Amino acid sequence: MHKLTLVLLACILCTSVRAAEPNTNIIFLIGDGMGVAYTGAYRLYQDDLTTPELDATIFDEMLVGMASTYPDDHNQVTDSAAAATALATGVKTYNGAIGVNAQRSPVVSVLDKAKELGYLTGIAVTCQVNHATPAAFVAHADSRQSYEKIADQYMDLKIHGKPKVDVIFGGGQEYFVRKDRNLAKEFEALGYSYNADIKDLSKIKKLPALGLFSKGGLTPALESEHPLRLVEMTEKSLELLSAKSAQKKPFLLMLEASQIDWCGHANDIACAMGEMRDMAETMKLIKRFIDKNPNTIFVATADHSTGGLSVGAKGQYQWNAAVVRNIKATAPTIARQLLASKSNWKSVWQSLTQIKLADDEQKTLDAFITQADENNSELVVGQLTAQVLNYIDKYTSTGWTTKGHTGEYVQVFSYGKGKNNFEGAIDNTDIAKKLFNYLK
Amino acid sequence: MHKLTLVLLACILCTSVRAAEPNTNIIFLIGDGMGVAYTGAYRLYQDDLTTPELDATIFDEMLVGMASTYPDDHNQVTDSAAAATALATGVKTYNGAIGVNAQRSPVVSVLDKAKELGYLTGIAVTCQVNHATPAAFVAHADSRQSYEKIADQYMDLKIHGKPKVDVIFGGGQEYFVRKDRNLAKEFEALGYSYNADIKDLSKIKKLPALGLFSKGGLTPALESEHPLRLVEMTEKSLELLSAKSAQKKPFLLMLEASQIDWCGHANDIACAMGEMRDMAETMKLIKRFIDKNPNTIFVATADHSTGGLSVGAKGQYQWNAAVVRNIKATAPTIARQLLASKSNWKSVWQSLTQIKLADDEQKTLDAFITQADENNSELVVGQLTAQVLNYIDKYTSTGWTTKGHTGEYVQVFSYGKGKNNFEGAIDNTDIAKKLFNYLK
Ligand SMILES: [Zn+2]
Ligand SMILES: [Zn+2]
Repeated sequence: MHKLTLVLLACILCTSVRAAEPNTNIIFLIGDGMGVAYTGAYRLYQDDLTTPELDATIFDEMLVGMASTYPDDHNQVTDSAAAATALATGVKTYNGAIGVNAQRSPVVSVLDKAKELGYLTGIAVTCQVNHATPAAFVAHADSRQSYEKIADQYMDLKIHGKPKVDVIFGGGQEYFVRKDRNLAKEFEALGYSYNADIKDLSKIKKLPALGLFSKGGLTPALESEHPLRLVEMTEKSLELLSAKSAQKKPFLLMLEASQIDWCGHANDIACAMGEMRDMAETMKLIKRFIDKNPNTIFVATADHSTGGLSVGAKGQYQWNAAVVRNIKATAPTIARQLLASKSNWKSVWQSLTQIKLADDEQKTLDAFITQADENNSELVVGQLTAQVLNYIDKYTSTGWTTKGHTGEYVQVFSYGKGKNNFEGAIDNTDIAKKLFNYLK
Repeated sequence: MHKLTLVLLACILCTSVRAAEPNTNIIFLIGDGMGVAYTGAYRLYQDDLTTPELDATIFDEMLVGMASTYPDDHNQVTDSAAAATALATGVKTYNGAIGVNAQRSPVVSVLDKAKELGYLTGIAVTCQVNHATPAAFVAHADSRQSYEKIADQYMDLKIHGKPKVDVIFGGGQEYFVRKDRNLAKEFEALGYSYNADIKDLSKIKKLPALGLFSKGGLTPALESEHPLRLVEMTEKSLELLSAKSAQKKPFLLMLEASQIDWCGHANDIACAMGEMRDMAETMKLIKRFIDKNPNTIFVATADHSTGGLSVGAKGQYQWNAAVVRNIKATAPTIARQLLASKSNWKSVWQSLTQIKLADDEQKTLDAFITQADENNSELVVGQLTAQVLNYIDKYTSTGWTTKGHTGEYVQVFSYGKGKNNFEGAIDNTDIAKKLFNYLK
């Protein structure tokens, strides 16, 4: 009977604790385009080669289920706008829709509701903050292309007389500091700090805060001086949102590893793995936060898969993670540097990829680079980029079926309070619905 | 306090029930090659178009997690033999290995251990029963290509003086009824019934039973008079293994939807969906069985993914399930029938695919079919098959990256007693290890 007595005591205790418990913090991380093949490839990519076993990842630790992603038309494959609207509001809609339903009426997001209830709110992403995924948590627009309108709504759609989002980190200077309107100045007038260089993150000491660290999206992780910039932005966001000076208000933080998708559209595996590392390290940071702040629910998923990526391709029963690991830049950067180095291209190729090409492949590259038409540089860069990607795919055995999205289920990861809510096969709209249930 | 009293009573009850409980039955179903894209595509394929919502599938209902599939060399993509050995024995090994470890020593399978402990055992598959996946549960061979040796071991590797498997259903006559040895006769001499036609399944009334319903693998589901032949074989297996005359011994039943993989190797989406239907309906049957026989654990997974299938391809944000649904035969059969019909090929194309081709595509097919070299028929069938698949992929927006396997994680499904054992991200070897824990 000892165990039962303990259970009994524990139950009485937890009931009384529950009554006094503050609301649960919510951290929602979206890996844009992060289909199943990306986490599988990343496990091989991040493996510590000095140990015999294949090390598990934070994705292994936190996997709880999968989610379907189709937009309101079942036969369609979703875009990031419809998927983000589903994840943010629980409503299926058409491709291109930002926070509006199929009838083009605005729908309420979990961030809207959290702010209504007095939560602190944050957004940190590696794209421009008015890009589709974060936009669906804040704005309402018939078209994701209305970038300036969406940026304006960060300021104009107020709740309790103030902007909805207390921490805004990402890219997008060109949309917020414009000739016709300087939203950064408007935010400053309302008491926000404004920073335009990610190096200044450490200077930010209190809410509210706006940080736009590039013109558009941030530099790709693979080429950035801040390859873990989502980690940095998340760390600062959590520090600000959970500070004691925040008067113990609960918070909702929306995060996105936005550029997994962009690397997927480019069919650039090394680029994708750089972004995956930032995503994985962000999840590890969040785990440490929740271990110290257990009254927090974390859920992560992808909005869809991009590129039709496969681990292994063209009959090869292998995937050469070591080759991917040695690639130091995205394919367009490699192409530009090869062209700039002219007849010295071999040493650039070696230092940026370490891939040993076959003789005929070397001849092909040599002819292309030394005879490139300098008057047609963007076309030439595009052609050479495609060729570079061909070789990377060949020597790594990486497969792609599209430059767009695909419609497979994506994985759902969770940690913290009530993570079992997200178990099994669910729909992307269910994630929002379950998060709404946390808000009270 | 009412709830607590109930919990108290329930706990005392379940403890006393547990002591007298018989061993748990095990049903283990492998969808060979069934990567994540296959279940996603199947959901669209099986949708009831008369209802507005996208109907969920049995896969949605039973998803509990995912499994990694790499063989003993992390950088490699697994074949069906290494994966089956991992799933059957809990031991990682090299590609091609059947029930042996990397040092080529035999390893014990869950079926071996179950039989040692007095369980009834069964195998029902849609390939030849000596093919890699079922073989790893029964045999030990350095190479999966040792088909006759593996067939012999079904008879020769006895446990408690008898063959290991009490119900053997699938294909493989050519390996069991040979000039040098007639294993079917040997099984009959030991009291097994032997049937060579799936129509005679209903005649089988008791254990032990051998049924080999074709020379090699069974006819593809899409073209079979028994499109749900795995369902039929599973139903009969469960009837025999759970019959009262079986003296209430527990059972272990190993099942495989073997040809999802074959359709994947062929990059034939309609073929794959036919096999997926058999797999899904088998899972529905098993669910009904477990609802009546709750002392049963069911686990299903894939050994790997095949073909690098994606739902959507080449920039198209859609997947045309309706087009797939109308395809009535595998691509080689379509090619053969087009060639046989000569100048009447258009009506055959229409009846077998219902795909409306563009004018230039019609011209291409017309020229190919009417000018085909009849002296080179297999080459011609191969070329036309490839062209037919091109059109099917184009009009359905289906993508493939390989004629081989790929290394992504696969899904894990479970139902019944202790299904939570299989939750989260696990390794394929963990599935065997967890099943061993059920055996006592
Ligand atoms: Zn995208
Ligand atoms: Zn295969």
